[in-house]
Amino acid sequence: MAYLLNRWYAAAWSGEVAREPFMRVLFDKPVLFYRTESGDVTALSNVCPHRFAPLNRGKLFGDAIRCPYHGLRFGPDGRCVQNPIGKGLLPAKAQLTRYATIEAHGVIWIWHGPAPADATKLVPFDFLDEHDRYDFVDGYIAIDANYALVSDNLLDLSHAEFLHPNLSNPGANQRVRFTAQTDGETVRALNARPGEPPTVLLRAALGDGVGDTIDMWSNVTWNPPALLCVEVGGTARGAPKEAGVNTMAAHLITPETAVRSHYFWKLGRTYRRGDPDFSARVQAMVSSAFVEEDKPIIEAQQHNMGDVGFEQLDPVYLESDGAAARARRIMNRLLAENAADALIAPV
Amino acid sequence: MAYLLNRWYAAAWSGEVAREPFMRVLFDKPVLFYRTESGDVTALSNVCPHRFAPLNRGKLFGDAIRCPYHGLRFGPDGRCVQNPIGKGLLPAKAQLTRYATIEAHGVIWIWHGPAPADATKLVPFDFLDEHDRYDFVDGYIAIDANYALVSDNLLDLSHAEFLHPNLSNPGANQRVRFTAQTDGETVRALNARPGEPPTVLLRAALGDGVGDTIDMWSNVTWNPPALLCVEVGGTARGAPKEAGVNTMAAHLITPETAVRSHYFWKLGRTYRRGDPDFSARVQAMVSSAFVEEDKPIIEAQQHNMGDVGFEQLDPVYLESDGAAARARRIMNRLLAENAADALIAPV
Amino acid sequence: MAYLLNRWYAAAWSGEVAREPFMRVLFDKPVLFYRTESGDVTALSNVCPHRFAPLNRGKLFGDAIRCPYHGLRFGPDGRCVQNPIGKGLLPAKAQLTRYATIEAHGVIWIWHGPAPADATKLVPFDFLDEHDRYDFVDGYIAIDANYALVSDNLLDLSHAEFLHPNLSNPGANQRVRFTAQTDGETVRALNARPGEPPTVLLRAALGDGVGDTIDMWSNVTWNPPALLCVEVGGTARGAPKEAGVNTMAAHLITPETAVRSHYFWKLGRTYRRGDPDFSARVQAMVSSAFVEEDKPIIEAQQHNMGDVGFEQLDPVYLESDGAAARARRIMNRLLAENAADALIAPV
Repeated sequence: MAYLLNRWYAAAWSGEVAREPFMRVLFDKPVLFYRTESGDVTALSNVCPHRFAPLNRGKLFGDAIRCPYHGLRFGPDGRCVQNPIGKGLLPAKAQLTRYATIEAHGVIWIWHGPAPADATKLVPFDFLDEHDRYDFVDGYIAIDANYALVSDNLLDLSHAEFLHPNLSNPGANQRVRFTAQTDGETVRALNARPGEPPTVLLRAALGDGVGDTIDMWSNVTWNPPALLCVEVGGTARGAPKEAGVNTMAAHLITPETAVRSHYFWKLGRTYRRGDPDFSARVQAMVSSAFVEEDKPIIEAQQHNMGDVGFEQLDPVYLESDGAAARARRIMNRLLAENAADALIAPV
Repeated sequence: MAYLLNRWYAAAWSGEVAREPFMRVLFDKPVLFYRTESGDVTALSNVCPHRFAPLNRGKLFGDAIRCPYHGLRFGPDGRCVQNPIGKGLLPAKAQLTRYATIEAHGVIWIWHGPAPADATKLVPFDFLDEHDRYDFVDGYIAIDANYALVSDNLLDLSHAEFLHPNLSNPGANQRVRFTAQTDGETVRALNARPGEPPTVLLRAALGDGVGDTIDMWSNVTWNPPALLCVEVGGTARGAPKEAGVNTMAAHLITPETAVRSHYFWKLGRTYRRGDPDFSARVQAMVSSAFVEEDKPIIEAQQHNMGDVGFEQLDPVYLESDGAAARARRIMNRLLAENAADALIAPV
Repeated sequence: MAYLLNRWYAAAWSGEVAREPFMRVLFDKPVLFYRTESGDVTALSNVCPHRFAPLNRGKLFGDAIRCPYHGLRFGPDGRCVQNPIGKGLLPAKAQLTRYATIEAHGVIWIWHGPAPADATKLVPFDFLDEHDRYDFVDGYIAIDANYALVSDNLLDLSHAEFLHPNLSNPGANQRVRFTAQTDGETVRALNARPGEPPTVLLRAALGDGVGDTIDMWSNVTWNPPALLCVEVGGTARGAPKEAGVNTMAAHLITPETAVRSHYFWKLGRTYRRGDPDFSARVQAMVSSAFVEEDKPIIEAQQHNMGDVGFEQLDPVYLESDGAAARARRIMNRLLAENAADALIAPV
């Protein structure tokens, strides 16, 4: 499948990659990850060019991975550094594809070329580093659906009223003001919700004294291909946003294949900080919502769509679809540009 | 796959469909079933036209199903009756395919168009309502094979001698008189078995006093595409049929896909009525024969045939194949007519 | 897939086939095996030509297999010998494909035509009958990979150093002298290893008195398509081979499909004979190496290669690849000759 080229994708949480070889399939390819002795992240093709054996079953010797099958060793730049067979000449072709990575915000990002990696194109998730402001919980889900269906899910939070009743209020979608904005390649869905009864989490955050209704917001920022930031919070009726509480969540979706995705999420909250029991409760609530409620729906969508493209299925549009529609339009344009670039690429 | 058009198919037992949404894949499509508050059966596409979410994970509000994802509600005619998002305009395109159904003989029948549903084309299974004459047991099996292989199984009961030795006698097929008849679209296999030792069930039914041999019959009626009635019984040697005992069984096979079928069966007996222990024994015997004996053979047939058509495999014909061959000939003619109809259908 | 025609393939161990019908898929086809009353091996298509039922679910009557579905009986030559239905005429077409077999060296070999079976083409494995010289252990593995990947594995034993450290010495591949020879259709990989520290097994075989280093050898003989003999042994430094110990192993690989193989192995040793505990230890060691170490690598190779041909993937060649490369070259030539033969075959 054609995935958006020349972008950074989330490949792993920082903590997932250590000295032990770690394999993850990304954009249809098995990728090997490990850290060098100095702690840098290495990402290489997991397929040995000799006999196509899986390198993640091999062992590290210093900064080089040794193939489990016939022992060729490859350094972190993908070049063969040792041939243990016979005279030990290094075959010129014995070279692994090396993927550029950046470790930032606790995430290992991988560059999907073919252009040279461009650090300026990294989508910033600076709030993930603001440990003085937020307490975080996170998770990872493998989801049997195209990544765009997960973006759609997050860009239209109206689904919370029906799919996550604990996280929303009955009738909320009749009162919410939907605003969709495009800013270059960025799409924003701004959902203002003044005068709503507080949800369970916000009641817990603001305390009972906050009254029967509060001012709530749930705003989503999307960047291609499927990097989202979701901000949900509330404040006392009429009070400034800063006086209230807030959660900021990164949702990073990376294609494993056309119909299977890696979904990384990390949520920071400004309230009840330093309370590990409450953190555990939030982690469990959010995990459960994603795994028990979103995942089955998204996977059934994919199943129902089969291999027919979304637009070809002529979907019905609702008021809440503005942001997702904008994001899909941008993706279609960018993917078409990929294809055009390919036509004029040097032979 | 092309299934026979403009026919009624068995979709479910009446008892399977209640107020709880119920989904079954029929002719490659997921279909949602539920009962309205007045008890009528509703059958709709299970795929929401908004984002292709699975409606059977939604909830009923009165007679309308609410999509689990973004809350669109659809009435039993498939039209969108509520849009809970924003101003709530009802999108003109928001319409589910509605399937006509008839509830008859304890079965929910579904019409596979595209012509308007025609109640006169329902194949009658009146005996299923004759509760004063029969005690019934029933069952449902999912079988990984094309529906026609199940029809073949039932239209040629000679297999009982080999596959179901408890239900037949050694050498019976040398003594049986096979008759195959075609009557319009209906095929009948009449197997007269005068002077046979009673089988286990018939011995239990007729009592030991009936003697060493009895007159038996096993007659099958087939209607397209795979609706069968199997009558098996016996009477004392030379006595009229009415003096004996009989079982009447409906076998209703509906394609889930080209290589997977729904198999509904219901068997009524005229003897040892009002005996729930005996009913349980009959249910267990028949279930076991279908699940342990027929199903593995039929699934292996499908596996051995792969995706090659039955006739292309140039099968050997035996005397007992007359009825199945007639049924396949009728199906081939009807399916060809379907294709011809499609050619002249309005654009 | 095109498999090498007009060759003998290992189908089963002699002990696997008895009076009980036994089915194995070979070259994409289900094959039925059983022994006649006189003990001869019969190999027939497992698919009844009447309705394509699986004959291995049937029963033997004398030397004839009875179809489980409608009772046709077929003799060991594949001809229908009884039709139990009606008048019982034997349909001329009711004939199973019969496969020629030879039982030799404890192996049931099957001929993959279409030419008539030619016993002179059987690859000899005479040592398997030398029970006065060897004590044997054996095993069977199903492996999800093309058979050629298993040949490659055995033709390049350099992998032992990395994949089976218990069976090799660190750095051994720098000291080994690799020699690859072609002799008609036969390929030999001769790996002389003078002056190596003894491996665990050879230490156990030669005793501690043998000293710190010994002369070792590991020689492989390959015949098309994937019949290998692996000889591994050692002797005291400078002593003649005959004064040492040796193991001779048959590795017989037969395609089930293009991406799944049957792997039969049998290993005879000249030392610690008559010691069943040691035999059990050897069986466990070898089994474990194949199942835990080789199989995952070979299956991952197949997965990584997908459906792209080996040469098209432009593999890197190392010094130890000479024999495997020669074998693949011979196979490519023989398969091309198969295709050419097919072009001039009579219609």
